Amino acid sequence: MSVPFQTRFIRLAAERSPLCVGIDPSADALKAWGLADDAAGLRAFCERLIEVCGPLVASVKPQVAFFERHGPEGMAVLRDTVAQAHSHGTLAIIDAKCGDISSTAAAYGEAFLGPKSPFGGDALTVSAYLGFAALAPIFDIARRESAGIFVVVRSSNPEGTELQHAVVSDGRTVAERLADDITVDNGVGMVDGLGPTGAVVGGTLGAEVARLAARMPSALLLVPGIGAQGATVADVQRNFAEHYRRVIPSISRSIAGAGPDPSGLQRQVERQIADIADA
Amino acid sequence: MSVPFQTRFIRLAAERSPLCVGIDPSADALKAWGLADDAAGLRAFCERLIEVCGPLVASVKPQVAFFERHGPEGMAVLRDTVAQAHSHGTLAIIDAKCGDISSTAAAYGEAFLGPKSPFGGDALTVSAYLGFAALAPIFDIARRESAGIFVVVRSSNPEGTELQHAVVSDGRTVAERLADDITVDNGVGMVDGLGPTGAVVGGTLGAEVARLAARMPSALLLVPGIGAQGATVADVQRNFAEHYRRVIPSISRSIAGAGPDPSGLQRQVERQIADIADA
Repeated sequence: MSVPFQTRFIRLAAERSPLCVGIDPSADALKAWGLADDAAGLRAFCERLIEVCGPLVASVKPQVAFFERHGPEGMAVLRDTVAQAHSHGTLAIIDAKCGDISSTAAAYGEAFLGPKSPFGGDALTVSAYLGFAALAPIFDIARRESAGIFVVVRSSNPEGTELQHAVVSDGRTVAERLADDITVDNGVGMVDGLGPTGAVVGGTLGAEVARLAARMPSALLLVPGIGAQGATVADVQRNFAEHYRRVIPSISRSIAGAGPDPSGLQRQVERQIADIADA
Repeated sequence: MSVPFQTRFIRLAAERSPLCVGIDPSADALKAWGLADDAAGLRAFCERLIEVCGPLVASVKPQVAFFERHGPEGMAVLRDTVAQAHSHGTLAIIDAKCGDISSTAAAYGEAFLGPKSPFGGDALTVSAYLGFAALAPIFDIARRESAGIFVVVRSSNPEGTELQHAVVSDGRTVAERLADDITVDNGVGMVDGLGPTGAVVGGTLGAEVARLAARMPSALLLVPGIGAQGATVADVQRNFAEHYRRVIPSISRSIAGAGPDPSGLQRQVERQIADIADA
């Protein structure tokens, strides 16, 4: 039995930084780096980003859509990007926001989680529109593979608020209900106070996020939207309050925005790491 | 400008059958056909299913997780499966239930929709947990590519009910809100009374589905869960009432369950087509 994802993350975050480098090689990002918008350009972008940033941080987060848009060759780059992260001892959180039921849910876990899977991820983001309990086959595979799961609970984009604040039959919001579901789910097999199931929570939501975080004390909190989407690390620390120690701050565009030059890229990621250490 | 997805579907459904053959090559399905659980087994399964069923129906629906679990090689099979469907004039609805925001949402559209995309799908299923409006970049690409979108509105699995029945600020349920959003979205550029944005609605939900369908008169209704998940074609016809003419009944396990023998497979798909024609 290998070490659970959450334990591996906490150890590595203490050694290096909790910063997660988001890998979002959009057409615009490739262009800004002077790369072709094809699988070779994608590969060059990811190799450079991992080579420079990988050794400095606990985790990287490739977003699958940016690999899928280059077809099977792009998906080979995703596989190799995860392997390259691992060569630096860095964890790979695959951002797919996927979700389905029964054998299809299991197939997502089989595809993305654990060293025996084709993509080899250490953790996976999932979406619960079909119900938290429908994701059980993914959670089962995550536990078997000592992998992590991040359920999208509350997103930073304004269009998400109405659905995520909708009220279920007992008066809780959808986001509150999912946060409580995570806590119940983590109740089994918890290690170091943290369970394998974490949450994605937006970085730009003000005081709401501390209340949500308080409902899921066993959850790691993956927080995208820092930098380009408007929140600073200081905002995130203030918003999450005492729960900030469980936050995985994910920064993508403002790191890649430094450009392809390795020394500039390294300065940018070191600046973000310093911001987080100071917060 | 090519013919919109919804028009292509309606024409082909009238010529052949509205039946959609779901392509769900799970580990169990491959085993039941005596195939290896690898990319070669996956390819053999999909080729046989399309070869026999493709010419008889309007559309097929490969589920991406079952291809992703075989890595980049599996994704090459997905690409080739879509191309093989097209060689029979059959439409390919890629079932990914994906969703994200801004450039990431656009990347899903670029990956899966239209003849210039690497996977070449005619339509895509999406999930709206981040908000219907967040999916706008995918809808824009669908329109540009004359492709279709199916937003998961109401799923047949019991775990989905609580979230999908949660109540938004104006008193509508999440499912009702999404149905209304689809109608507003289709208001622009409608052809033949149908728009490019359809819905996934479960087949096992009783009278609720006719009320939902009535809120989205311009939506094609992709209805999985027939057969193995408990609903019969007659149930679906009764439940959807006058909206049944917009239903795309999707059947997966009860077709693949006939086994790999082409004549048995053909009898099974013809039986399903006859059931639908009689309903």
